[in-house]
Amino acid sequence: MAEPRIWTAALIVIGDEILSGRTQDANLAYLAKWLNIQGIQLAEARVVADQMGAIVAAVNACRAQYDYVFTTGGIGPTHDDISVDAVAEALGVPVVLHPEAEAMLRQYYGDRITEARLRMARVPGGADLIENPVSGAPGIRIGNVFMLAGVPKITQGMLAGLDGKLEGGLPVLDRTVGAWVPESSVSDLLIAVEREKPGIQIGSYPFWREGRIGANFVIRSREQTALDDAAARLMDALSAAGHDPLDGAI
Amino acid sequence: MAEPRIWTAALIVIGDEILSGRTQDANLAYLAKWLNIQGIQLAEARVVADQMGAIVAAVNACRAQYDYVFTTGGIGPTHDDISVDAVAEALGVPVVLHPEAEAMLRQYYGDRITEARLRMARVPGGADLIENPVSGAPGIRIGNVFMLAGVPKITQGMLAGLDGKLEGGLPVLDRTVGAWVPESSVSDLLIAVEREKPGIQIGSYPFWREGRIGANFVIRSREQTALDDAAARLMDALSAAGHDPLDGAI
Repeated sequence: MAEPRIWTAALIVIGDEILSGRTQDANLAYLAKWLNIQGIQLAEARVVADQMGAIVAAVNACRAQYDYVFTTGGIGPTHDDISVDAVAEALGVPVVLHPEAEAMLRQYYGDRITEARLRMARVPGGADLIENPVSGAPGIRIGNVFMLAGVPKITQGMLAGLDGKLEGGLPVLDRTVGAWVPESSVSDLLIAVEREKPGIQIGSYPFWREGRIGANFVIRSREQTALDDAAARLMDALSAAGHDPLDGAI
Repeated sequence: MAEPRIWTAALIVIGDEILSGRTQDANLAYLAKWLNIQGIQLAEARVVADQMGAIVAAVNACRAQYDYVFTTGGIGPTHDDISVDAVAEALGVPVVLHPEAEAMLRQYYGDRITEARLRMARVPGGADLIENPVSGAPGIRIGNVFMLAGVPKITQGMLAGLDGKLEGGLPVLDRTVGAWVPESSVSDLLIAVEREKPGIQIGSYPFWREGRIGANFVIRSREQTALDDAAARLMDALSAAGHDPLDGAI
């Protein structure tokens, strides 16, 4: 049986405000889960400054390496919004005014339209629009690059419009087994289960809570049967070793 | 007057749990602020999977490009902790047991020491240790690469031990001016102030809160006088345009 094709994506978060620590990114986790539902794996994320060279380099590295590239941020109306110019530069195309985006903005703003607001109709030449159900300015798709807004509510609205529209494969399923045990006590056991059960991976995530040490073991697979099988095997192994596993995260 | 040297750093977050969306990264923002106090600018961040090739590529790209590279995650005792092996591979050095780290672990765990726990004494050959005031296993410094734990409380403890020990330049200072105005209404004004005042940058961060639209304008500079000067100028310009600026974030 041929291995199923794995579809991959990268996220490029564009924004000085994330790199300065002023703003906590909230798009990575949301996009990761959304992508997984589409059967696409978020394989890498980068956070880059609002600088032409940095954005161009990240876009070109990622679009060559992954099936899809998503960018968030920098598509607003102000001088620090340079994502459109940077993606156009990366792709070697001019920046053009998209007639449909212009019409959308003119309708959204009415007589409050300004030159600054019309900046949001600028796209890399050849791009299509991504619907924005929340505010006026659309997202942008060109080739395998998807440019989304940085404000999470708007980002999520744009993703909703892409539901089911991107080709993907099987989503990664996961099950978590928790135990009040230091992960270092059971590392051999984890290796044994992972080796014994093909097609699964186990991640170990220790924590320290209310004065007690524990760990959640997250089993991931693209096949439900393999997942359930491995979870049962891990629970047995933990029980046999005298720990008291929980079927689910602690 | 010569431009002051700007010191830069990159963060490489190592972990499938971040890329799957299961865990929200909490180290980027903390590290960014900590670095700024040291006079070092976080210039890029990457999130990569627990995979040898991905970690090696990110480490090599970043250590060539920035003054400092920080990694978080993947230095624990389990099979998915491969950061030490990957950094050693990137630097072309062997993995060795650090005698001092071994002694620390033996003292910390006493007769609960196991082979798995001793894995945490493995370092890339030639590395120094970074003190871990929270739990037993130390962080690792080799060349310009600093390997920290992924658990935020431990990461922060390790950074505290590095306070004032890394050469840096002037920290970036910032002041925020807020206004209940759509950023697109004042974009020309922002450009004018930024052009008029050398040595400053203005970031525009729109929001939508309690049914109202507003924006915070963050002015950044390495010189306090330039910062205060630009803030006063921006407040004046916003007032003159009929908006009602706040000296501080909304």
